[in-house]
Amino acid sequence: MKLRLYNSAAQFSAACREVRVQGGTLGLVPTMGALHSGHVALMHEAKRLATHVAATIFVNPTQFAANEDFGQYPRTLDADMTKSEAAGVNMLFVPDVQEMYAPGDTTRVRVSGVADVLCGAVRPGHFDGVATIVTKLFVLAGTCTAVFGRKDYQQLKVIERVVSDLKLPIRVVGHPIIREPDGLAMSSRNAYLSAENRRRACAISRGLSKAWQIFESGERNVDPILNCVKEELAIEHLKLQYAELAEANSLELFDRQSRLPARALLAVAAYCDKTRLIDNVVLGEDLDPLQQSAAHP
Amino acid sequence: MKLRLYNSAAQFSAACREVRVQGGTLGLVPTMGALHSGHVALMHEAKRLATHVAATIFVNPTQFAANEDFGQYPRTLDADMTKSEAAGVNMLFVPDVQEMYAPGDTTRVRVSGVADVLCGAVRPGHFDGVATIVTKLFVLAGTCTAVFGRKDYQQLKVIERVVSDLKLPIRVVGHPIIREPDGLAMSSRNAYLSAENRRRACAISRGLSKAWQIFESGERNVDPILNCVKEELAIEHLKLQYAELAEANSLELFDRQSRLPARALLAVAAYCDKTRLIDNVVLGEDLDPLQQSAAHP
Repeated sequence: MKLRLYNSAAQFSAACREVRVQGGTLGLVPTMGALHSGHVALMHEAKRLATHVAATIFVNPTQFAANEDFGQYPRTLDADMTKSEAAGVNMLFVPDVQEMYAPGDTTRVRVSGVADVLCGAVRPGHFDGVATIVTKLFVLAGTCTAVFGRKDYQQLKVIERVVSDLKLPIRVVGHPIIREPDGLAMSSRNAYLSAENRRRACAISRGLSKAWQIFESGERNVDPILNCVKEELAIEHLKLQYAELAEANSLELFDRQSRLPARALLAVAAYCDKTRLIDNVVLGEDLDPLQQSAAHP
Repeated sequence: MKLRLYNSAAQFSAACREVRVQGGTLGLVPTMGALHSGHVALMHEAKRLATHVAATIFVNPTQFAANEDFGQYPRTLDADMTKSEAAGVNMLFVPDVQEMYAPGDTTRVRVSGVADVLCGAVRPGHFDGVATIVTKLFVLAGTCTAVFGRKDYQQLKVIERVVSDLKLPIRVVGHPIIREPDGLAMSSRNAYLSAENRRRACAISRGLSKAWQIFESGERNVDPILNCVKEELAIEHLKLQYAELAEANSLELFDRQSRLPARALLAVAAYCDKTRLIDNVVLGEDLDPLQQSAAHP
């Protein structure tokens, strides 16, 4: 089946509607492009859950702060189209900025609570941008199943909140993190890493794996688990931005005095030189991150 | 035709969808209830523009500040149902607060610019609440023509912004203000007025009418026009909250040095004892407010 490319929001929306009018169902994979195996896994999952798959590629300016990497974010449209078509995507929506934010656009969707901790605390406005663009894409797509990677775990929770609160006719599905064979979580930003930094970056998933192991062995105190991550990062001199344990749905943080429940999110953000990397594992639910890479080769 | 009442968002949404599936079109009239002839005019307009009319009654807590009249806002459901049915409404959606804001709801839609002046400047958060609830109602209703009164002129502009920015499949229609025979703009809050205050409140529309007359005679300076309103309010000792001239689409305020264009919004908010009243006229477009009451009896 041939991939159809859409630049117009109205035409993309009409094509999504047509899928349903014809009795089909729609899977949606919103991305910022620079597609890697993680995105491809989301597309395959969408294909499994619906008769037709729409993917979107839009580097969304409102989710970048002024000092962040909007300008240099990798843009690889030709390769993205090839990968999308190979993954069975039927419709690819690639709007320009004006198409999603017309002149005079001043409406923002803002989630509080779940969006205020972790990345939300260190990237002010980031999740307002995410919630806003995802709302627009959901309104255009209409009734569908939208698939997001759990590498951006907090983003997934913010989007679930938006869908529930705004009563959007969207089923949101989170997909397990896809990792490189050595454990590094797939990310478009991995392209920023030199070979040496690429090697150092593995400290993050190694730390998560060690934390996972002591949690599995029964550890329920916060500090020993966070220390697994901190120690691995320190070995490679990665700069920790945050390592936190949080309730896996509300993202309420556990403090040092807490005893963890049977399931908790361990989330990490760190800098490898200038490249910001994030990763996470849901303790008590996910596989060992280093096993996970084998499970999703 | 019998009015159908819905308390469930899911059932209301399904009924709206069914109208379209059957080949009909939907008119939507969102209200806070305490229906008066102004609301009834919106319902008639919706009936003129679509095959089926849905009205909603929801006193939306998020658009009231803590010190405002959420608790005492008039609630007259039985009379509202009778008026809705007589006006040809097919579906009446009357959710409770939990149905529109489930526990844990933290998503808000915020418009800046057009929402920051006039009422937005004196009622912080008010238009966030309006934009949020209207987005939810629009998502539930789906493709439709939504009719709003121009008494809440700024609200109409905020809603037009939300629909355009979030790409909602809604056609927004503004309906002229409906006035009492003596000129007072119809409002559910007029029920708060004693007979004496009801009489005093007419100073607002009288002031707008005088302003309209000098504008029609060629006056294009700001102060003389605003003074028409201020003088009438002063006669009845009404407390002015604001009187402003603004560009009729962007709501950018004209300052005292401005020379007005051929079309401008004159908007007023004033207190009559404890009752806050608003009114407006689009100079260069609307009829004389005191004639208007005759035109829409």
